[in-house]
Amino acid sequence: MPPSTASAGPLGVLAALAARAEEVERAIDTLLPLPEGPEARLLEAMRYATLGGGKRMRAFLVMEGAALFAVNPTCAARVGAAVEMLHAYSLVHDDLPAMDDDDLRRGRPSAHRAFDEATAILAGDALQAQAFEILAEPDTHSDPEVRCELALALAAAAGARGMVGGQMIDIAAEGQTLAGPEIARLQALKTGRLIQFSAEAGAILGRAPHHQRQLLAAYGRDVGAAFQIADDLLDAEGSAAETGKATGKDAAAGKATLVALLGLAAARARAEILADQAQAHLDMFGARADGLRALARFVVSRRS
Amino acid sequence: MPPSTASAGPLGVLAALAARAEEVERAIDTLLPLPEGPEARLLEAMRYATLGGGKRMRAFLVMEGAALFAVNPTCAARVGAAVEMLHAYSLVHDDLPAMDDDDLRRGRPSAHRAFDEATAILAGDALQAQAFEILAEPDTHSDPEVRCELALALAAAAGARGMVGGQMIDIAAEGQTLAGPEIARLQALKTGRLIQFSAEAGAILGRAPHHQRQLLAAYGRDVGAAFQIADDLLDAEGSAAETGKATGKDAAAGKATLVALLGLAAARARAEILADQAQAHLDMFGARADGLRALARFVVSRRS
Repeated sequence: MPPSTASAGPLGVLAALAARAEEVERAIDTLLPLPEGPEARLLEAMRYATLGGGKRMRAFLVMEGAALFAVNPTCAARVGAAVEMLHAYSLVHDDLPAMDDDDLRRGRPSAHRAFDEATAILAGDALQAQAFEILAEPDTHSDPEVRCELALALAAAAGARGMVGGQMIDIAAEGQTLAGPEIARLQALKTGRLIQFSAEAGAILGRAPHHQRQLLAAYGRDVGAAFQIADDLLDAEGSAAETGKATGKDAAAGKATLVALLGLAAARARAEILADQAQAHLDMFGARADGLRALARFVVSRRS
Repeated sequence: MPPSTASAGPLGVLAALAARAEEVERAIDTLLPLPEGPEARLLEAMRYATLGGGKRMRAFLVMEGAALFAVNPTCAARVGAAVEMLHAYSLVHDDLPAMDDDDLRRGRPSAHRAFDEATAILAGDALQAQAFEILAEPDTHSDPEVRCELALALAAAAGARGMVGGQMIDIAAEGQTLAGPEIARLQALKTGRLIQFSAEAGAILGRAPHHQRQLLAAYGRDVGAAFQIADDLLDAEGSAAETGKATGKDAAAGKATLVALLGLAAARARAEILADQAQAHLDMFGARADGLRALARFVVSRRS
């Protein structure tokens, strides 16, 4: 019998993720323009890249974080949708031939394979604009101060000193030997900053006291770091059938990962420590944070 | 003897453009991160793409519009810088091999030639994020409602139903025959929306009455349409030495332009009508709008 709450084990968190994923999928579907007019191909590519499923971990973080502060779930789902659009744009661009050159994403052809390169570049560009449009719209929060803070935090997490900067370092580091701290910073930028934003967004929406927002940011940083190591472990150990994307690519490309640096066992141990540490930041939120705790455990135990 | 104000003729508007361009150049230089750390290459590419000169017409529109409402010039320059970053990102991505495949921009190698494709894609991505970051920051305006409105208007102008949508239609239309209204819509999206935003931004910053904002938006739409026709005329008539970019490319690529549809003389006549129409929207602003009037005349008389 499957447990009924996210706190009850891996099946519980999968069910909770699936429920949140359905919510955010509906929000994305509503928020993205319908494919009409001569630009329909662009709008189709945006939908293809964003509505193709996925765990929606970032949206889950937003929505679970928002629930801690009794934020209107519709507002939280909008912010979750915006983060997923931002994330989807980054995957579309990362997959391009000039970047990681990946043909497969979530078990389907990547956007530039399903459409073409120009359409994929433009769809990514438009998804980024759409994410900021959603955050700035009054429907996201009645207080414009909150909306500005969301847009500011997302822009900082996504830009040159965040996700895009991390991707630049990642590409530049191919075939080079980076030290542990350099790899950790690379990954904190490339995937960590957006995950941290997602964990903090609920506190921003809920106008939470500063120290509570800081706790969620710290939780997000640790979850993000654990997630990235787990992702690299899956690349090293998993099969394409399990993960829905090509595996073994990091090693082939000479990518700088902690798995390559520390070895499988030590990397796994570090991911476990980070997941424990992440949960420790949630103590003051009591049982209401069980979904976030379960997610921290899930990111280091998932098989895809 | 050169005239001393923008209203006095083509030399006046060039001097006014140059003065505003210097202001916005300084703002961009201050607002872009310094090229440090392992992501320095990305930050260099962002600077290369944005600080390479140019007329800064969009920033000029923002700053002249803001002056109508006595907006703090530092705030206006920040918004001007944000628009120029957004514009620069679009040029970097448009020039990519998968898009227009242009090796030359403003008389220099385009970003992917000066750096490489991956860096150019990422620099464009980061410039877009940076533009929204600037708009959302408290230094841009003390009222968060104003900042949200700026971010919302820029996102709408830049996204799938704006600039990026226009670029998609433009690419899809290569080698096809579009009717006049279709070409006009394509260009209204591709270049018009961002120019319209630039013209409106001063009114947003100045919390101007709705009808005044509407007048500036109408001015921006007409200036944008005139500008695009003039740009296409330059492509058809000009030389690379004059324009600083490759010319004759539209015809070679079978691009849908009003110049190709109407012929040179009729297209030039239409641009002149649009420039006159643009100025007519400014009547209520009196002599304070002389800079904007001069710009409307300039866009149809420029040689590069």
